[in-house]
Amino acid sequence: MLLKTRLRHWLFAAATLAAMPALAQQQKQSPDDAAVIKQFYDNALTSYKSYNDLRYLTKNIGARLSGSPQAAAAVEWGKQVMDQMGLDRVYLQEVMVPYWVRGDKEIGRINSGVTGTIETNILALGGSVSTGDQGISAPVVEVQNFEELEKLGKKKVQGKIVFFNRPFDNTHVHTMAAYGGAVDQRGGGPVAAAKLGAVGVLVRSMANELQDVAHTGGTRYQDGVTKIPAAAISTRDAERLSALLKTDPNLKFYMRMTPQTLPDVLSYNVIGEIKGTEKPDEIIVVGGHLDSWDVGEGAHDDGTGIVQSMEVLRLFKELGIKPKRTIRAVLFMNEENGLRGGRKYAEEAKAKGEIHVAAIESDAGGFTPRGFGIDGNDGQYAKVLTWKPLLEPYGLHDLTRGGGGADIGPLKGQGTVALIGFKPDSQRYFDYHHTEIDTFETVNRREMQLGAASMASLVYLISQYGL
Amino acid sequence: MLLKTRLRHWLFAAATLAAMPALAQQQKQSPDDAAVIKQFYDNALTSYKSYNDLRYLTKNIGARLSGSPQAAAAVEWGKQVMDQMGLDRVYLQEVMVPYWVRGDKEIGRINSGVTGTIETNILALGGSVSTGDQGISAPVVEVQNFEELEKLGKKKVQGKIVFFNRPFDNTHVHTMAAYGGAVDQRGGGPVAAAKLGAVGVLVRSMANELQDVAHTGGTRYQDGVTKIPAAAISTRDAERLSALLKTDPNLKFYMRMTPQTLPDVLSYNVIGEIKGTEKPDEIIVVGGHLDSWDVGEGAHDDGTGIVQSMEVLRLFKELGIKPKRTIRAVLFMNEENGLRGGRKYAEEAKAKGEIHVAAIESDAGGFTPRGFGIDGNDGQYAKVLTWKPLLEPYGLHDLTRGGGGADIGPLKGQGTVALIGFKPDSQRYFDYHHTEIDTFETVNRREMQLGAASMASLVYLISQYGL
Repeated sequence: MLLKTRLRHWLFAAATLAAMPALAQQQKQSPDDAAVIKQFYDNALTSYKSYNDLRYLTKNIGARLSGSPQAAAAVEWGKQVMDQMGLDRVYLQEVMVPYWVRGDKEIGRINSGVTGTIETNILALGGSVSTGDQGISAPVVEVQNFEELEKLGKKKVQGKIVFFNRPFDNTHVHTMAAYGGAVDQRGGGPVAAAKLGAVGVLVRSMANELQDVAHTGGTRYQDGVTKIPAAAISTRDAERLSALLKTDPNLKFYMRMTPQTLPDVLSYNVIGEIKGTEKPDEIIVVGGHLDSWDVGEGAHDDGTGIVQSMEVLRLFKELGIKPKRTIRAVLFMNEENGLRGGRKYAEEAKAKGEIHVAAIESDAGGFTPRGFGIDGNDGQYAKVLTWKPLLEPYGLHDLTRGGGGADIGPLKGQGTVALIGFKPDSQRYFDYHHTEIDTFETVNRREMQLGAASMASLVYLISQYGL
Repeated sequence: MLLKTRLRHWLFAAATLAAMPALAQQQKQSPDDAAVIKQFYDNALTSYKSYNDLRYLTKNIGARLSGSPQAAAAVEWGKQVMDQMGLDRVYLQEVMVPYWVRGDKEIGRINSGVTGTIETNILALGGSVSTGDQGISAPVVEVQNFEELEKLGKKKVQGKIVFFNRPFDNTHVHTMAAYGGAVDQRGGGPVAAAKLGAVGVLVRSMANELQDVAHTGGTRYQDGVTKIPAAAISTRDAERLSALLKTDPNLKFYMRMTPQTLPDVLSYNVIGEIKGTEKPDEIIVVGGHLDSWDVGEGAHDDGTGIVQSMEVLRLFKELGIKPKRTIRAVLFMNEENGLRGGRKYAEEAKAKGEIHVAAIESDAGGFTPRGFGIDGNDGQYAKVLTWKPLLEPYGLHDLTRGGGGADIGPLKGQGTVALIGFKPDSQRYFDYHHTEIDTFETVNRREMQLGAASMASLVYLISQYGL
């Protein structure tokens, strides 16, 4: 695109935006609301603070699975960052977390009489048991879903590696819906396969596109069912394996991985808060999760949610905006493989009789904001909709019901707390999710900061008007 | 993000989407419109055709400035791709284009008595004259705008290199508005500086962020004003130079670049069309530009616009949807440094008495679609708004007035043609624009395909109902 021929319509859009304060004055809210929100965006878009924080978290600390020394370093870092913000209170909340370690780099190898040996990219699923030092080698049976597996029955599954290969349905516009249609294979695959006597599981990586990187993620075992080793295989290698199985159904897959589950470790949620001026006992939570998987840098999952949550507090402090209700940033521990932080937070909130008005979670990547999903009663949803004219100029059109998030989920039912999920653009999320390429470089500063300002704006409106 | 705790609200969103056909039936349009549009998205999101086309254009042909052998190869390729689509007509439209060549890799060097020699990243602006083989070395005078430059006057500018260093205003949510507020320096800098006796110009690169890559782009000279060499300097080096000037105002900048303007070359717009079944004489254009700057691969600018435009035709053909009006994909030549293709197209349309109903241009990157900007009369805009319920489920909320694009601009005023600019998310555009990092790898297939389906949907509605 060149010079200025096309600028007219963009400037027009900018002019529309500039005219918004006038528009907002027609709303029920104070005429200053639009001005405050503009301040949030102006400040966020010109600030490098949280982007530099993210760089530190991803580059200097890196991947930080619960229980690891890196997770401990992240706790310390999170507390330090908030300590320096001049908040009313910063504290740690103890929580015991699981500690799973990956062990040696995985080996995944197709051995075919037809094509010889082909190396593949696999990653042990979080929580998986070891194959033992020698690894395992077995024929492979490919299925698309649990029904197919059941039909095969014990006879055809016994002694084999079950290969769950149902791809994402790419016709979903929201990639989260495609994920939702495939992730049962990862969570439930090992138990279903073990029940029929399988010796291992391969699951097609949870991704929209054909890629060489494998995507890890949590899986589950069940008491009384043999724990068999389970790995994700890259989508490209899944396609390859599937094609090879058609020409050589007798090929064998060799997998070696040596993960271990160690004793639980003491860890922490990190919490910072600004006390409300009028209703300090009414709390608005904004949070993400501090832990990540142990590959990559946990940038979009969920480094961005962490720095955005702290950025909300920074924006209030720096702009001197005093919320009527208390705002609390919570950096939850152990979202990825246990949710112990989220549960602990809700438990303690209940025990202390705390009143939560709303909880907003950012855990879908640091991409351009599109809106919020609201899990609340009719009145709460209706109230959020009255703020639409204030939010739409910033691209927040998608204010739909249903929402929330994993970490704030356990708060559900405590009083009338509304659980709100921040919704960024979803297209790129599953290119990076749970992989070694979820790195700082894939985060765009402006997109992330637009998200932080969006969260600050909603937090502000709730802090002023309740829900 | 983990397992399925968060899925409820995404599945809810998906369910909302699935319910849309029912909603659409309440509109004035045919009940089938929503179904047709869903077909476009389903097909586009699961197709790799245009993504592979883009790979070929960017990787096998690469940068393709007007007049270059690569631009000629792109013309041949574009025609071949459309020839294979079974369209009603594919043809070339002759147009003479300028042919500017960059010459040797540029050298830009700060020579300071205080800090010694520092190499910087510069790129000659498109159209710039050469510094000569020896290069030029001169003191630097920094300004933010033309007013400052005027105030300095001849005495302080004579013999110097003028350094235009006004940054993007990052508070703009639309980056296009930030670009609009800065690009006058690039276009008008050399003439304004030369009038006061400057010997060269450095312009801060047109980018939101601090980067090492310089951004080229067109500049202008004026008859009767000395043509002085002009280069873009990377934003990071611009900051460095500015800081050094404060400690050493006498530093000198050495620049060497050897571009040349060669004689005009015969080139082509590439055009493919599907004849309308009921009103074949009424034409809807969908287009982008086939040329690019001579650095990088011209992926977002404007490879994506090119393959999206052809994808619109493919979607109609493949789905067997017969438009009532004629749809024409136009791959315009020479948008970047002359606009000769756009002018030629409009000229011939006028000469032939063709009736253009609408022209849609995609030239703002292959990012997630947000909407369209419509430059048309009140009735046309109102009509587009009636389609909002059909478009919003796909994230197309931003249907604002003002719009169009450079290549379709010359059509303005021919009958009642509406000029429509496709508006993708703008946040990342100026990270890549006119640089060596505008490469295939920065394009996300799904984002690009959502754009193609969005354009196909609007083209379809216009083809059915006129404007």
